[in-house]
Amino acid sequence: MAVTDFNGPDFDSWELRELKEKLVNAAHILDREGVTDGFGHVSARLPNGDAFLTLAGVSPGCATVERLVMLDLDGNYLGGEKAPPYEWPIHACIMRARSEVMSVCHTHSKWSSLFSILKGGLQPIHMYAKFLPPSGPPIYPAAGLVGTIERGAALAAALKDSAAVLLRAHGDAVVGNSIEQAILRTLQLSFLGELAHMAVAHGEPLYLSQDELATFSADQAFPARPWEYYLSRIRERRSS
Amino acid sequence: MAVTDFNGPDFDSWELRELKEKLVNAAHILDREGVTDGFGHVSARLPNGDAFLTLAGVSPGCATVERLVMLDLDGNYLGGEKAPPYEWPIHACIMRARSEVMSVCHTHSKWSSLFSILKGGLQPIHMYAKFLPPSGPPIYPAAGLVGTIERGAALAAALKDSAAVLLRAHGDAVVGNSIEQAILRTLQLSFLGELAHMAVAHGEPLYLSQDELATFSADQAFPARPWEYYLSRIRERRSS
Amino acid sequence: MAVTDFNGPDFDSWELRELKEKLVNAAHILDREGVTDGFGHVSARLPNGDAFLTLAGVSPGCATVERLVMLDLDGNYLGGEKAPPYEWPIHACIMRARSEVMSVCHTHSKWSSLFSILKGGLQPIHMYAKFLPPSGPPIYPAAGLVGTIERGAALAAALKDSAAVLLRAHGDAVVGNSIEQAILRTLQLSFLGELAHMAVAHGEPLYLSQDELATFSADQAFPARPWEYYLSRIRERRSS
Amino acid sequence: MAVTDFNGPDFDSWELRELKEKLVNAAHILDREGVTDGFGHVSARLPNGDAFLTLAGVSPGCATVERLVMLDLDGNYLGGEKAPPYEWPIHACIMRARSEVMSVCHTHSKWSSLFSILKGGLQPIHMYAKFLPPSGPPIYPAAGLVGTIERGAALAAALKDSAAVLLRAHGDAVVGNSIEQAILRTLQLSFLGELAHMAVAHGEPLYLSQDELATFSADQAFPARPWEYYLSRIRERRSS
Repeated sequence: MAVTDFNGPDFDSWELRELKEKLVNAAHILDREGVTDGFGHVSARLPNGDAFLTLAGVSPGCATVERLVMLDLDGNYLGGEKAPPYEWPIHACIMRARSEVMSVCHTHSKWSSLFSILKGGLQPIHMYAKFLPPSGPPIYPAAGLVGTIERGAALAAALKDSAAVLLRAHGDAVVGNSIEQAILRTLQLSFLGELAHMAVAHGEPLYLSQDELATFSADQAFPARPWEYYLSRIRERRSS
Repeated sequence: MAVTDFNGPDFDSWELRELKEKLVNAAHILDREGVTDGFGHVSARLPNGDAFLTLAGVSPGCATVERLVMLDLDGNYLGGEKAPPYEWPIHACIMRARSEVMSVCHTHSKWSSLFSILKGGLQPIHMYAKFLPPSGPPIYPAAGLVGTIERGAALAAALKDSAAVLLRAHGDAVVGNSIEQAILRTLQLSFLGELAHMAVAHGEPLYLSQDELATFSADQAFPARPWEYYLSRIRERRSS
Repeated sequence: MAVTDFNGPDFDSWELRELKEKLVNAAHILDREGVTDGFGHVSARLPNGDAFLTLAGVSPGCATVERLVMLDLDGNYLGGEKAPPYEWPIHACIMRARSEVMSVCHTHSKWSSLFSILKGGLQPIHMYAKFLPPSGPPIYPAAGLVGTIERGAALAAALKDSAAVLLRAHGDAVVGNSIEQAILRTLQLSFLGELAHMAVAHGEPLYLSQDELATFSADQAFPARPWEYYLSRIRERRSS
Repeated sequence: MAVTDFNGPDFDSWELRELKEKLVNAAHILDREGVTDGFGHVSARLPNGDAFLTLAGVSPGCATVERLVMLDLDGNYLGGEKAPPYEWPIHACIMRARSEVMSVCHTHSKWSSLFSILKGGLQPIHMYAKFLPPSGPPIYPAAGLVGTIERGAALAAALKDSAAVLLRAHGDAVVGNSIEQAILRTLQLSFLGELAHMAVAHGEPLYLSQDELATFSADQAFPARPWEYYLSRIRERRSS
């Protein structure tokens, strides 16, 4: 990975400061809310579009602005810590395939791991499922870490136009048009997994129809409220 | 929403101070005890009866006395932060239909969400069920957030004379003749849901009969004790 | 309840100081370890045998040495806060029936509540079950709080010579020859309930035979170690 | 147990300082991550091979460098607190049978306890299972604490060349070529147990084949990252 002819902002420039801090907060939220363990990462595409920031080989709960790395969509190093995550192609390949995606989360979430190896899929039984396809997130079936462009491209193909994809026996990848959206969706996917898991003990539940999901989707959404809330929870922790 | 000819106490008056602090504590308890996420709200009817206080577009865990709003039962703004929750009709319509109700809690409780989409209902298997109908809380079946008077009225009709109603694929609404009662019932409903969920794995449990529930109901109750306890838990958190 | 001709130590005497502090610690441990909610209590029999100390109408998590009450085995008030718990007969009647019992815990434990309404009982599937009868703890089947001598006597009869009894749709009562033993058994009963609940999903487990339980029982036990551990956890909490 | 002709480093020597601190951290991680209760222990073999350090009759969460003990592989006392854990043969016998093992963890993990009494075994349904045999960890079936050389030898025989063995109705023993590896495997075993437990409710899951596990195993591993993460979590706790 060599430095390319990238002409976006420098890794250390002031204009990236806010994005980097938000990314670190996002990583801490993943950790605080219990959807990730010592592994997993979250990324943010740069405003100019052809590069992204992510965690540099550090657990989400230990992330700092000093431990970020900047890569272009081919994985070329552009700045920051020289330890890109082994699975950087998750971020690069999805961002290349989906130009509207500004952030990608990858975790080993317990609930995503569970549904990734079940045959029935993750059916919508709560309004939070409105960001998902009616039959639930698709599954990327291959074994192995997503450490190559080939695997990353196959993952992006499995994701297709969905907001989330489950990685079989591994975890999930969730996208958003902002860091906040990718994080909130990751947390809601976890909630949906837990709920769908519990429901199975009770016989066929009353799944939401496409019309019903559409009704929920037509209502207003309030993404700023949970973001403020999750920020308050990581701040409370830092000050304790 | 325009200011009406309401002649109860002013939002900033001293006589509302205690009620506002109790409401904020109630919101923090919902959060601390894990029955809500970044969404949900709790309301308190004013002593004069025709208005209520609730959270102004803020997560229960982030509520403060400055972030409350006062509305009349038609949703007209009477004071406080100018951001009533989108689902204010949950509170207004239930209080209008049930004059004895002094407080309403609305959460996306995991357990209420679960039972809201199951066919079997939430049967009583613990003495804490004594505030519920013997066949469990009714279910409001419609999709969509309760953001209009029409939906609020339909919700109040589904609630009827019960202490709680489940909102399908969404959560619950629980009422009380005081803030303390609405909160304690919300927590007990969560406990009852968890218990009923676990019991289903073991074959038909020994449900409580109406007579048995009546025996438990005839015994004394001690609502001050858990309220003191839950307050101690939010205070411990604040001081840590 | 009038003061009787009791001639044991005075409630405020120095010789009870250590016992009272241990009792408060025990209540805090019940709370810290999550086996109780705002209700429940724990008692300690006095060395002279015919009286006991317990919580005076306060949640276990809020207990202090000032909020204890001393009663004789008929429930007569002997000192401390004048608010004995409504269910004092749980303690008095069991201590009267079982002279070796020095401490009784009563909680609304989730796991005890669950098994109290199941038909199959709580079978031994872990070595911690060595303090229980091979078919699990007996069940007290009656509805209603144990607020009278009659109900307390029926509970003691259901307990018989077991170390624990489940109160149907209510919780449990667990006894020990010391406060430490009653607490540790309560925590282990909770662990056993969780384990037995999970096992049921997997088909018939390999239950421990009486011989196998006897083998575990024949081995040494180390009750001081978990007591030190649980104390460290409540101290950590107090200092945070 | 008498002092032998051991000629490795003295218990109080500086060269053991780092190993002892790492061992205490390991014990605290076991506690912090919830895989152990007041019981359980972890050991570290000395560089010279024929002795080990472990907890001296203290709960993992209460371990300190002063409360360690040094024993040779026959259980002879070599230094430190004179209270070796009753089950020291778990460590001594496994280290004797497996010369590459540098650390052994023993816990009463809820998930290991569960699968130890199930007939189906713990099948691999997540990439974290790559350190386990394809049919899951073997089970040591005998009742009783592992307090004698005979029982320890039987346990080592059940473990054979696996990385973990389940102790029926008791817990687990997990080995590693470093303290870090033994701890990470213990945590992953717990995660795998939870996942396999949940999966059983959904019909036959898509187990990983040996080829698929081999694909995951062929990928790089990053053990330093979770170790840093788990250390950060015990430090956060100490400073709170």
